[in-house]
Amino acid sequence: MVKYSEDYLALGQNLDPEDYVFTEYTVKTDEDMKNVAAAIAAEQSTGTWTAVSGLDKEIFSRYAGKVTKIDGNKITVAYPADDFSIDIGGVPQILSVIAGNLFGLSEAQGIRLEDVFFPKSILEQFKGPKFGTAGLREILDRPEKPLVGTIVKPKIGLSPKQTADYVYQAGLGGLTNGKDDETLSDQKFCPFEERVSAVAEAIDRVRSETGHRMIFAVNISTRSDRILELADRAQELGATELMIDILTTGFTAVQTVAEDPSIKLPLHIHRTMHGALTRNREHGISTTVISKLARMCGGDALHIGAFGAGKMNGDPTETLLNQKACTEDNVPYKAIMPVCSGGVYPGVVKKIVDIGGNDVQIQAGGGVAGHPDGILGGARAMSQAVDAAYAGISLPEYAKTHGELKTALDKWGYVE
Amino acid sequence: MVKYSEDYLALGQNLDPEDYVFTEYTVKTDEDMKNVAAAIAAEQSTGTWTAVSGLDKEIFSRYAGKVTKIDGNKITVAYPADDFSIDIGGVPQILSVIAGNLFGLSEAQGIRLEDVFFPKSILEQFKGPKFGTAGLREILDRPEKPLVGTIVKPKIGLSPKQTADYVYQAGLGGLTNGKDDETLSDQKFCPFEERVSAVAEAIDRVRSETGHRMIFAVNISTRSDRILELADRAQELGATELMIDILTTGFTAVQTVAEDPSIKLPLHIHRTMHGALTRNREHGISTTVISKLARMCGGDALHIGAFGAGKMNGDPTETLLNQKACTEDNVPYKAIMPVCSGGVYPGVVKKIVDIGGNDVQIQAGGGVAGHPDGILGGARAMSQAVDAAYAGISLPEYAKTHGELKTALDKWGYVE
Repeated sequence: MVKYSEDYLALGQNLDPEDYVFTEYTVKTDEDMKNVAAAIAAEQSTGTWTAVSGLDKEIFSRYAGKVTKIDGNKITVAYPADDFSIDIGGVPQILSVIAGNLFGLSEAQGIRLEDVFFPKSILEQFKGPKFGTAGLREILDRPEKPLVGTIVKPKIGLSPKQTADYVYQAGLGGLTNGKDDETLSDQKFCPFEERVSAVAEAIDRVRSETGHRMIFAVNISTRSDRILELADRAQELGATELMIDILTTGFTAVQTVAEDPSIKLPLHIHRTMHGALTRNREHGISTTVISKLARMCGGDALHIGAFGAGKMNGDPTETLLNQKACTEDNVPYKAIMPVCSGGVYPGVVKKIVDIGGNDVQIQAGGGVAGHPDGILGGARAMSQAVDAAYAGISLPEYAKTHGELKTALDKWGYVE
Repeated sequence: MVKYSEDYLALGQNLDPEDYVFTEYTVKTDEDMKNVAAAIAAEQSTGTWTAVSGLDKEIFSRYAGKVTKIDGNKITVAYPADDFSIDIGGVPQILSVIAGNLFGLSEAQGIRLEDVFFPKSILEQFKGPKFGTAGLREILDRPEKPLVGTIVKPKIGLSPKQTADYVYQAGLGGLTNGKDDETLSDQKFCPFEERVSAVAEAIDRVRSETGHRMIFAVNISTRSDRILELADRAQELGATELMIDILTTGFTAVQTVAEDPSIKLPLHIHRTMHGALTRNREHGISTTVISKLARMCGGDALHIGAFGAGKMNGDPTETLLNQKACTEDNVPYKAIMPVCSGGVYPGVVKKIVDIGGNDVQIQAGGGVAGHPDGILGGARAMSQAVDAAYAGISLPEYAKTHGELKTALDKWGYVE
């Protein structure tokens, strides 16, 4: 066991939140918690496992991380704002400090980064979203009701025409949003450009036939050096929204597209692979941290989980924290639309709205495409469930006069 | 519990490795392993938690993932090569399939992606490294001996001049490699351009005074839309190697720099944050998978751990698998230099060489900068340890005639 300097401990000190980035970690260890906490503060700032000759008092006093709190297995570490390099280093450099080598410290069996709080001087170096919740609602002319969407299923295999037909049915059924699934890109069975054009045409057709507005997030997750070109091409072909997988494509790729003035479309942020980082409660990174960074980088809509109501793993508290990260007003950005997705079906819609309120986008893939009456029936059932939830009417009650919802509840059940 | 279709099971079938991407997962579950395996194959290809109307037989037969093996808690899943979109989707799309939503499946308590095997048709769409091990050895005029390097410590706080002085001493002490630590970028105390210039001058001075060659990997981890510009600027200012943190900056950012013909410098690939994904043996992603992708994307030198010999968490088997991923000749790329780093000090050098052989780059930060005789002494001690290991002489024996090594062994001990 390495003994770290107690100079990294500043327990009980009230450091100015404008001068530090505050981080909260959960630590699993059999060793002395103070020493492990000091190890984190040291390794992520000026220290390492052994004392080094170049670390003088001035460097230490200016740049050392400080453990300000230890509460059971929860610790708070404050890193001086001057340790960060936002203009050049950006999110990669932020992560290297708050979520870098510490995960390999042999002094702990597990460390989880739970939350991060940035000073204004850092937040202001990010531009945040162009549209946010208000912008999405304006585009959709839907001022109050929850947005309701679908992920096209099966996630791969459909042709551009089949995809567009799906979207057309979804629009007729009242859905406001659609999206590619994360593995769909530019495969031979569904070339990107053909898909974008066909879907745009389907959305136009819904609008001209019924007046209903809908947007569809096309997956532009790609090499970061080509993402702007792909975003631009999608926009030219009539795309109405862009989807980026933020962990596999990169936080800065989102920033690239969000900050480019020529791209005038909202960004739908998906988080595939996040479970590898976030699921273990004793080790890794919380979804809250990802959510905060996604909003800073310019996402307009962001997956937050489904309050534990869907078929995928998830818990209500985690979703609530993500929702807070999307909407809290102590950051200088627009609020962004929290997207509830992952094993969602009509029977969980009211629970989601009861917990999350109306400023959510509720999405179902299998919960639309698996409906016995097809995509149109599935879309109607989801729309009806949202209407019921918005009106505060129970789903079984509303289903008495809404056949597609009744069929969905009969097939998949519902939660209260 | 959702019951997944048994059609996703193809146990014992010998599928053509040229037509599929094979993946190996470790699964922790209390449920029926066959069903969980089917869930993974389904969720990552054509299925979801409920049957959907659009999934016809043709789509299923062409694009469904197949579970080909279940052996205790280890499963093998084969995804059709046609499910992938390399030209547009690239690594983000690969990850979305092999390491995407599956981590959130409620049917398992933990899933770990252990390994991946790509068909030639996919491997050939990546260019791999420009230099690799042979190229690095040529640059350094060091045909056989292990490379030996340092990470400048303290990791933040030194000025450009102090950094350059450190590098100068390291070069005089015989080190072949140096690098920025991962949190160093362009902070006020050490602006990027000044640092690059000062270090270049120090390396030139070592060369002109002693003939010794050295390269230094400057950290260009930055926004992906600016990384090429930063690489170019570093090159203009005399940088000899570039470092990219592949997980925080992105696999495709590495590819961007590696594939650009104007960048004529080797790429040193660091993996900060990897422990969040890789450390838990029951959930997440193995370092092997990261290593394979890093080589495909064009890294020339790659951190692989330290065979469990350093002060950071790590085990020998994992390092060996990473070394194999760097060097195996069944992929159409040059072998790349495995970098052993993380709590390394002179006393572990022989063990590293005994296990890993001479084609390794051994790096110490604290293990150089913490030497009682300063950077020069620390560099000499590391160089002497490498010379001893290369000659097959025990460290204590060699230390009898090499004072700096003796001092290091006295301070930190050694392993055999």
